[in-house]
Amino acid sequence: MTIERVLETCLYVDDVEAAATWYEDVLGLERYASSPPRHVFFALADQMLLLFDADETDDAGPDDKAPPHGARGPQHVAFAVGSLDGWRSKLEEAGIEITAESDWGGGSSLYFEDPSGNVLELMEKGAWPVW
Amino acid sequence: MTIERVLETCLYVDDVEAAATWYEDVLGLERYASSPPRHVFFALADQMLLLFDADETDDAGPDDKAPPHGARGPQHVAFAVGSLDGWRSKLEEAGIEITAESDWGGGSSLYFEDPSGNVLELMEKGAWPVW
Repeated sequence: MTIERVLETCLYVDDVEAAATWYEDVLGLERYASSPPRHVFFALADQMLLLFDADETDDAGPDDKAPPHGARGPQHVAFAVGSLDGWRSKLEEAGIEITAESDWGGGSSLYFEDPSGNVLELMEKGAWPVW
Repeated sequence: MTIERVLETCLYVDDVEAAATWYEDVLGLERYASSPPRHVFFALADQMLLLFDADETDDAGPDDKAPPHGARGPQHVAFAVGSLDGWRSKLEEAGIEITAESDWGGGSSLYFEDPSGNVLELMEKGAWPVW
């Protein structure tokens, strides 16, 4: 009876298909399941990243296998990267503004927004003791 | 230049200290860092689960190391458990309503809400091929 890990991390986005294409193109994620306009799912290692349109999920009907959910406003998610090398130039070439850079001691991170305004972070190995 | 994993999953809650106590008591998570009323952090395996009060994080000042963020409304997060055995009775004994149960083929899951209305899921090994 132990919680082993976070298995599904969810972000709510304005346009699921457009958002998913952005996550593929900019972050290099691979689509696992695709059902726009409701959701697109990505698999990362032993986790899932789920993009939802809150307007589609907050009124889940009786046939839905999950209860209604759906948040509005900018969420935050941090992704682990081995190194930030190359990411600054890649983001800049994609026209994405780096909104902050922070040094956490063991490692640093870059912040930027996805097209829906969610605050994403790329965090180097060592920034958290857990990884 | 590969995204290796989700490192930080964030939930926005109404009362950080009360929420953190609930996550400890009901889910058995261990507090990693505690700075209510702004945040409490939990470490799970090689990930972090961060509870934030959106009213504290959505107006981050110039001294904050991260840009402002903060969502409202029910988010969804799924946690991995080896088995659901025992969780039904544990949740019921804690007075927590199980709002749905779903069989995904390879495994099943239970849904319930945290005190802020976030839709939590306990998912058995095998429900997703990634774990």
